[in-house]
Amino acid sequence: MRTVNAYGAVNATDPLVPLMIERRDVGAHDVLIDIDYAGICHSDIHTVRGDWGPIAYPQVVGHEIVGRVAEVGGAVTRHRVGDLVGVGCQSNSCRECTQCLQGHDQYCLNGNTQTYNGIDPADGTITQGGYSQAIVTNEDYVVAIPVGLDPAKVAPLLCAGITTYSPLKHWNAGPGTRVGVVGMGGLGHMGVKLAVALGADVTVLSRGTKKRDDALAFGADRYVDTTDVGALRELRGGLDLIVNTVSAGLDISRYLNLLDVDGTLVNVGAPAEPFSVPAFALIPRRRSLAGSTTGGIPEIEEMLEFCAEHGVHPETELVSAEGINEAWDRVLSADVRYRFVIDAKTL
Amino acid sequence: MRTVNAYGAVNATDPLVPLMIERRDVGAHDVLIDIDYAGICHSDIHTVRGDWGPIAYPQVVGHEIVGRVAEVGGAVTRHRVGDLVGVGCQSNSCRECTQCLQGHDQYCLNGNTQTYNGIDPADGTITQGGYSQAIVTNEDYVVAIPVGLDPAKVAPLLCAGITTYSPLKHWNAGPGTRVGVVGMGGLGHMGVKLAVALGADVTVLSRGTKKRDDALAFGADRYVDTTDVGALRELRGGLDLIVNTVSAGLDISRYLNLLDVDGTLVNVGAPAEPFSVPAFALIPRRRSLAGSTTGGIPEIEEMLEFCAEHGVHPETELVSAEGINEAWDRVLSADVRYRFVIDAKTL
Repeated sequence: MRTVNAYGAVNATDPLVPLMIERRDVGAHDVLIDIDYAGICHSDIHTVRGDWGPIAYPQVVGHEIVGRVAEVGGAVTRHRVGDLVGVGCQSNSCRECTQCLQGHDQYCLNGNTQTYNGIDPADGTITQGGYSQAIVTNEDYVVAIPVGLDPAKVAPLLCAGITTYSPLKHWNAGPGTRVGVVGMGGLGHMGVKLAVALGADVTVLSRGTKKRDDALAFGADRYVDTTDVGALRELRGGLDLIVNTVSAGLDISRYLNLLDVDGTLVNVGAPAEPFSVPAFALIPRRRSLAGSTTGGIPEIEEMLEFCAEHGVHPETELVSAEGINEAWDRVLSADVRYRFVIDAKTL
Repeated sequence: MRTVNAYGAVNATDPLVPLMIERRDVGAHDVLIDIDYAGICHSDIHTVRGDWGPIAYPQVVGHEIVGRVAEVGGAVTRHRVGDLVGVGCQSNSCRECTQCLQGHDQYCLNGNTQTYNGIDPADGTITQGGYSQAIVTNEDYVVAIPVGLDPAKVAPLLCAGITTYSPLKHWNAGPGTRVGVVGMGGLGHMGVKLAVALGADVTVLSRGTKKRDDALAFGADRYVDTTDVGALRELRGGLDLIVNTVSAGLDISRYLNLLDVDGTLVNVGAPAEPFSVPAFALIPRRRSLAGSTTGGIPEIEEMLEFCAEHGVHPETELVSAEGINEAWDRVLSADVRYRFVIDAKTL
């Protein structure tokens, strides 16, 4: 066992504080990663605040982790000391169910292990995430970061990137498809960049006009201010796929009506309140309302290669340990363009 | 023009009454059909009662029509005098949009012509449906009834049959897929028979146990009483496709939870109240909530051939003209096994 510096929550309401946490010994199939960077995801805040249910404290969150392999177990074959690697939302899964056998550990039927606030199958402890100096985790859930990606910017791909890439690929976004991205925050801005890189025709739907210039700079074909009723009306039936990244409640039928026949609106943000879905928003155009979560290890590797090949990087703002609480406040007030990354050397 | 006997509504609330209605002259591309049988669909009642918006009266409903061609226009090539034919929910469409060009006139982007309560492109009048002795309509929206189907039972295939067949086919019901059918009324019982004939593993979900024996007789693999919480819990994650035929409101998340990863719940019934859909009923299993309406002419023809080949017939109860109002009352109280068919010779 070793003790490492971290930044974590001691309860649901107070600011995060410096903590010391223990990392287990490196097992035969484990790697020890010296963390360089950790992204700040809105899910971190939801989890700590108890928005998704009660949790155990202290809790160190963070599931967008990038660092160097510092030690490997005796049976490790996938990684070597010195490799630049990443850890995302899942750190283990049953490996036996039909989903795991297809590489879809994000949908593990027996419950995968979340990188934080999960139960580590190695020792039964509550998993602690990336706002820390180092992590010990199973090699099979660690991905190589391809050459060509900037280590300081790549962390958000492990959650925001894969969470938008996976539905874009699953619902066949590409040349000839008309993709809408609702909301342009951490997830949304990755959705835009990835849909553009996939060759789709991309429409950004966001409140107001503050993000219009950025959306166009990211390669979007058009920007629609969702408070502009006329512009929304003009877009009716004009999209094949909508990725909704907004985790606040919204009038979902307004967006369903933008879909053409056989179109799908897929939610990757999770509002607390249920959507109100009129049957007549679905039936006359054979539309679908779907949901999607992160991606499996093979798909994360594919996504990282895709980003390296197409030069897709998140827009990031680097913060030191002492800036984490302010960064959280700014995430909550949507004042970030577009993802905070913690410099883990400052922890 | 000719005048024919019919049975129709003079307002939203009173019983239907005998009426005389006019049918236009047979145009070059029209056929005159002497109607033998007309099915009674719940939609007929919703339309007349104004549940889906105000309509013009008098209105003769009925969109499950079977009869013999009595006269053809000079340019007609698809049908001959004496042929046994059918007319379903749509009697025309734009023929130019991407949907019509694919044979999906049910999703015509310019608005198709409903067989009743539509606007006839031939003369601008309000279309009048199948509760009548004869109808004049465009040959392209008339389908041949294959040999081997019982003319007295086949009418419900034109709406109840195609409305369940289309989503079963679209979402690939067949050997190896686990299909649930929610509700076993007019549409539901066809959904069960068709899913069984397609080779799927079929679960019927219905309130109480009254329909258990029928469900198993129709070939369903199992029956689940939806008031049995334990049985529903056991079925969690156990279905690939659910066809919901219930047009009353229901707690949709209970049914979404029955879907496995990548499962779809498709609504063909249209409750007046919106569904309440928690994002977490969709996201962790990449589930979809969809809607589907009827089918296009080529798919209706395919479905009729399929039914002839597999011996699939609706369960019907024949009524005469004077029994129509009582039949409507029994539809409203779900007291029909499983579809009323009007003997049009009694009109």
